[in-house]
Amino acid sequence: MDSEAASTSFEPTQAGSAIPNLFLHVNHMNIDGIAYRTIWLDPDDARTVKIIDQRRLPHEFIIHDLNTWQDGAVAIKDMYVRGAPLIGATAAWSMYLASLETADLNELTRIGDVLLGTRPTAVNLRWAIERMLSIKPSSYRCEAESICDEDVEISKSIATHGLPLIEAIAKKKNGAPVNILTHCNAGWLATVDWGTATAPMYAAHERGIPIHVWVDETRPRNQGAHITAFELGEHGISHTVIVDNAGGHLMQHGLVDLCIVGTDRTTRTGDVANKIGTYLKALAAQDNNIPFYVALPSTTVDWSVRDGLQHIPIEQRDSEEVTHLRGTNASGIHTVRITPEKSPAANYAFDVTPARLVTGLITERGICSASETGLLTLFPEQQP
Amino acid sequence: MDSEAASTSFEPTQAGSAIPNLFLHVNHMNIDGIAYRTIWLDPDDARTVKIIDQRRLPHEFIIHDLNTWQDGAVAIKDMYVRGAPLIGATAAWSMYLASLETADLNELTRIGDVLLGTRPTAVNLRWAIERMLSIKPSSYRCEAESICDEDVEISKSIATHGLPLIEAIAKKKNGAPVNILTHCNAGWLATVDWGTATAPMYAAHERGIPIHVWVDETRPRNQGAHITAFELGEHGISHTVIVDNAGGHLMQHGLVDLCIVGTDRTTRTGDVANKIGTYLKALAAQDNNIPFYVALPSTTVDWSVRDGLQHIPIEQRDSEEVTHLRGTNASGIHTVRITPEKSPAANYAFDVTPARLVTGLITERGICSASETGLLTLFPEQQP
Repeated sequence: MDSEAASTSFEPTQAGSAIPNLFLHVNHMNIDGIAYRTIWLDPDDARTVKIIDQRRLPHEFIIHDLNTWQDGAVAIKDMYVRGAPLIGATAAWSMYLASLETADLNELTRIGDVLLGTRPTAVNLRWAIERMLSIKPSSYRCEAESICDEDVEISKSIATHGLPLIEAIAKKKNGAPVNILTHCNAGWLATVDWGTATAPMYAAHERGIPIHVWVDETRPRNQGAHITAFELGEHGISHTVIVDNAGGHLMQHGLVDLCIVGTDRTTRTGDVANKIGTYLKALAAQDNNIPFYVALPSTTVDWSVRDGLQHIPIEQRDSEEVTHLRGTNASGIHTVRITPEKSPAANYAFDVTPARLVTGLITERGICSASETGLLTLFPEQQP
Repeated sequence: MDSEAASTSFEPTQAGSAIPNLFLHVNHMNIDGIAYRTIWLDPDDARTVKIIDQRRLPHEFIIHDLNTWQDGAVAIKDMYVRGAPLIGATAAWSMYLASLETADLNELTRIGDVLLGTRPTAVNLRWAIERMLSIKPSSYRCEAESICDEDVEISKSIATHGLPLIEAIAKKKNGAPVNILTHCNAGWLATVDWGTATAPMYAAHERGIPIHVWVDETRPRNQGAHITAFELGEHGISHTVIVDNAGGHLMQHGLVDLCIVGTDRTTRTGDVANKIGTYLKALAAQDNNIPFYVALPSTTVDWSVRDGLQHIPIEQRDSEEVTHLRGTNASGIHTVRITPEKSPAANYAFDVTPARLVTGLITERGICSASETGLLTLFPEQQP
């Protein structure tokens, strides 16, 4: 694998300028005025898939090459890419890279299993790999491109369906900004473009509706502070970073009008596995009568699971993500230990928010209640 | 002000060894086997008050001198010391230092007002200053010593009253460790000795009851990761640091038996202002039927306030506490920025947990319900 530092100051760069115009008609999300997707096939080399190395944000903006399916597996496991839809897209492109090495279905199935083991919680991983394995290897490139294009269309549909929620609050507030709280990053950097939870926010921003986003920093990996704040800021959306502890207080004092978060896996009954801490915000929203919505492509629904608390596996990650943190100062970028050396740490990556705490699910087909009945209204093909 | 680095590796040091035996009979809390209080008058120089510079923990252990009342004001404002009881004790010793400069009551009252303005939420500050101002300046030294000794006795009483809660759970668990979750630091480093929330834990540990403490790191200042983990570790108590997001998940899965936190100000109706994020843990405890106790010296009760949400002022602190973090690596101690440069941050220091979410208040006079009736049963002298 090879990394190419585009810039640390986000000035227009070689790598940025090199993004093909081909994508521009569907790309709306900007970094320093340049439109990107989160993953794309190198237009000059069809054996190379390019991603943004999200581990480095916001301190560095680095385009990273995937040359083998193993590179893809590392990128997912080590979180160069993250977010359920983008994990799915990366798995699809990894399968494409594998198909350049072998057309043997047994071998490709084995590779699919390895990719499946990289992150246990996101259901899109399984969905994308199974979709690839169901077609002939010679079509993998086309299929991976379709998965990406469809993901963009799904995000746009989520934007369309979620926008009226924000519009309705804006109307009541007479021009005062609509305060939206979000947790982790369910932004365009978690998908191929537009995002899920952020899609309605970007749509509102384009319509000129004043919004302000409270960005939970989202410990331990700080995807909120590192990625959501970065992407909102680069796109010009008013936002404030807060610690994960702050949301309840803000809600108690009328400073949050609406919560929208993403999800890594949703059960057919509407339970929502999302980044650790989501459950606490949902409790606070309920306690303060604030609508709590979850935005999701239906690809993140696991129709085989009914009880999220019992049956969604929760990934435990390296405790170093809790004990160490990466940041920048005048002398460069440093990873520092923030806990006593003698103290162990635990790192549960997700929690499950029971359906009873979710006001509604914003999907590509519309908004429904977080329940089996609600989901089946929009997705009748999943009737048992 | 002058700082004296005792050691970064916590070996027995000059400063540590110099702590007078005078205190040892009441001092139980250890750092590397040496018993300390958090604040004491220099036995060799009655014009110098010594504190542990808690901003430096856990990376450095530094004893810091207060030579003037202004030093005391800075130590409170800049959080060399923190925790409601210790803030009160530091204010008392600051008034003593002021009394070395003037015996004029108007002047001392003015100094008291300055000290009162250093931290708006902790009610002990007002309590300690008013107590000092009610006596003659020549008795300030004796009074400050009394405030400290009384605080230690209060912590021990809280330990005595809280211990049976842990014992009862231990009995049910047949020797499996009792899992206790705490937020922020209401430990001996927040008081003069023993702590409030931690006092029953230290008592259980001394009795040989197996306990394990989940330590919320407590963003933004990480008093949990920096101070609670440090003091529990130094005293040999089993503990695990978690991010503030994790508690809900642990409670959903039966991994928390009991929550005990401290408070900076409690209303006469039992509403509890404590470190930001406490409210979220109380919501999760209620949702999972886990007892949620608040340990407090009655000095933190503000008998004049009935509605905590409306009438306890919530301090907003510098946003740098959110955007920057201090840690250590092979090249030394670094303060690093962890958010994008363009992103603003907000920093609300406390939130209010409504009495309805609190199982009980552990005070120096016993345990009562978090209500006016409950508090007045233990403190009948506060009847209107």
